[in-house]
Amino acid sequence: MLGKELEFECNGAGAEITAPRVLEELLERAGIRLNGNRPWDIQVRDARVFRAVLLKGSLGFGESYVDGYWECFDLAGLMTRLLNARLDEAPQGLARVFHGFHELRNRVCNLQSVRRAFHVGERHYDIGNDLYAAMLDPHWCYSCGYWNEADDLDAAQEAKLDLICRKLQLQPGMRVLEVGCGWGSLAHFMASRYDVEVHGITISREQAAMAAERCAGLKVDIELVDYREVRGRYDRIVSVGMFEHVGHKNYRTYFSSLADCLAPDGLLLLHTIGTEHSASGLDPWIDRYIFPNGELPSMPRLTAALPDGMVIEDLHNFGPDYERTLLAWWHNFHRAWPQLSQRYDERFARMWRYYLLSCAAFFRSRRGQLWQLVLAPMDRAEAYRSVR
Amino acid sequence: MLGKELEFECNGAGAEITAPRVLEELLERAGIRLNGNRPWDIQVRDARVFRAVLLKGSLGFGESYVDGYWECFDLAGLMTRLLNARLDEAPQGLARVFHGFHELRNRVCNLQSVRRAFHVGERHYDIGNDLYAAMLDPHWCYSCGYWNEADDLDAAQEAKLDLICRKLQLQPGMRVLEVGCGWGSLAHFMASRYDVEVHGITISREQAAMAAERCAGLKVDIELVDYREVRGRYDRIVSVGMFEHVGHKNYRTYFSSLADCLAPDGLLLLHTIGTEHSASGLDPWIDRYIFPNGELPSMPRLTAALPDGMVIEDLHNFGPDYERTLLAWWHNFHRAWPQLSQRYDERFARMWRYYLLSCAAFFRSRRGQLWQLVLAPMDRAEAYRSVR
Repeated sequence: MLGKELEFECNGAGAEITAPRVLEELLERAGIRLNGNRPWDIQVRDARVFRAVLLKGSLGFGESYVDGYWECFDLAGLMTRLLNARLDEAPQGLARVFHGFHELRNRVCNLQSVRRAFHVGERHYDIGNDLYAAMLDPHWCYSCGYWNEADDLDAAQEAKLDLICRKLQLQPGMRVLEVGCGWGSLAHFMASRYDVEVHGITISREQAAMAAERCAGLKVDIELVDYREVRGRYDRIVSVGMFEHVGHKNYRTYFSSLADCLAPDGLLLLHTIGTEHSASGLDPWIDRYIFPNGELPSMPRLTAALPDGMVIEDLHNFGPDYERTLLAWWHNFHRAWPQLSQRYDERFARMWRYYLLSCAAFFRSRRGQLWQLVLAPMDRAEAYRSVR
Repeated sequence: MLGKELEFECNGAGAEITAPRVLEELLERAGIRLNGNRPWDIQVRDARVFRAVLLKGSLGFGESYVDGYWECFDLAGLMTRLLNARLDEAPQGLARVFHGFHELRNRVCNLQSVRRAFHVGERHYDIGNDLYAAMLDPHWCYSCGYWNEADDLDAAQEAKLDLICRKLQLQPGMRVLEVGCGWGSLAHFMASRYDVEVHGITISREQAAMAAERCAGLKVDIELVDYREVRGRYDRIVSVGMFEHVGHKNYRTYFSSLADCLAPDGLLLLHTIGTEHSASGLDPWIDRYIFPNGELPSMPRLTAALPDGMVIEDLHNFGPDYERTLLAWWHNFHRAWPQLSQRYDERFARMWRYYLLSCAAFFRSRRGQLWQLVLAPMDRAEAYRSVR
């Protein structure tokens, strides 16, 4: 039956655009029309989009957007509708068409994993600091902000940094290990505002250099080392936006490595994107192509990997704040485009928009979660009082 | 080797008391001495305690306390040391002696499950309301209080009730389902303070009658029905101290039954004792005898049972507050003993002390957790902001 549905005209740009009925039906389930007049409707520019989707599912959908085969005014709204319609749970024939959409949402939305050098089609983009400077807040936080009482991105990122410090109950002179320190935003904040000593580790030579430079003059040292090889004893351990790269086979090792470095009265804060569904049975090609070595944790998998002596003191989910963060990043990117366009082309802009707004939809649809967990050794004497 | 260690004198009261070396060694690991002079040391009154422990492990330890074979000034301190020493992880020969201690801590500490009619030895105790009236706060809360800003039990229980209402974001006129409504403390509080309509369900005829009586004149109706048979649509669902009776094989049914009754923009609050370790491989006889039909959840098991459409918005662990609650209950019981002793005998008092203080140790040692989870349907539009 699917074979019959596939008999459609697909002559490329210039020819009459005829959508395969199976696709129209599928989109109808999500309340989306081809060439409709609502903001979230898909405007088809080139019939090759149909072949791409039918053959490659969600991967083809994204690629053909970057190729300019279709447009959408409210891309985040479109993607949210696609996610909410749970098309991957549709009747068999239809579901196969959007094969991979379920996987997409677990993959595409780990922005930190997107390599700084993008390969899109035949072009290779070397993403420079100008892009991040334009898009991010002054602290250069490349993770979810905390919008509880914030009105803009800068306030939300500062609130996030401070929330982490308050949850960790930082006191002057404490030794803090940061696992996956990125560009040193949090290390800088903790050392300068809370007068703690920070040991930041990362496996990125580029990030280590930049973090060290930004934190010069503070009690921060940055080391190029894998989390499995870190040694020492710390009062506090924090890890932001790094767990997504660990992979479930390494969860036990990750937690026990960190637990070994934690003082008996210590605290560990883990900040990670999560999802209610364990990612499994993935297409390895997609896995490698879009989201190398990344995997979003589920709560059963994460908690099953905790060492015996560790207690979950607190779990804070502020996933909806990631939508606002992503939209703010897109807003900043868009505003800076006149300058950025001197270095990046239209194709790059489309790809960037697709990434940011797909991820926004992932969180708006509540498929994506943002978890902050506070863990403590069982032997810790003091009762932990969580804050918000 | 264990056989040889078992060759010890055990002639009962009156004979010279000789402790088997294996027990002394085991207790030494936990920093406990037989007939030592520290508050947590064990004062042996009858050598039959040794046989009881060697043959029945922790079960025999408790039974022989009730039998008066040993005393301890700081019983909670003793039990905490036993738990912290992780005797169940001791070398094989020793571990077998305290066989069951690990199981005990998962069983003994569900006070709500203790039948109102106790059978201890040859005596059958019909526990009356006089006992609860003396022990509990004025609201008759028989679950963990919230001691964040409270100085006494009454304030802690009122703070707990209010915390639940604030987390549920109750608004006047909302329809609330309470699963396992006990004596109606929370139903009364919600209806009278927050002006909501409460439908409380329980499978205890006695509790239903008392809850209905206490809530007379309020918008509260109490129904004698199992959670699997509840129907309707509610803005909020709350379940306090009931999940411990569900059993892991029913977790999925429990959550899906509740999810089916929850409005799309609803919230569900679950208040339960938990433990980091999944209870498994239990001795069925102990299971039936001490803690019938009870099982403390672990986080992996609990989260794995959540329906696909439910999001964990918040997890609050205030396990250490249960120690304070239990000590306050013991304090109240002890203070009321002159009156209570007219109805209950010394043997009952010993049993009650053992239960309350063992449980206090379970939480002080951080083996026991008190979890409040807030769950919401994925389709809920509004972002959830948790409070503390």
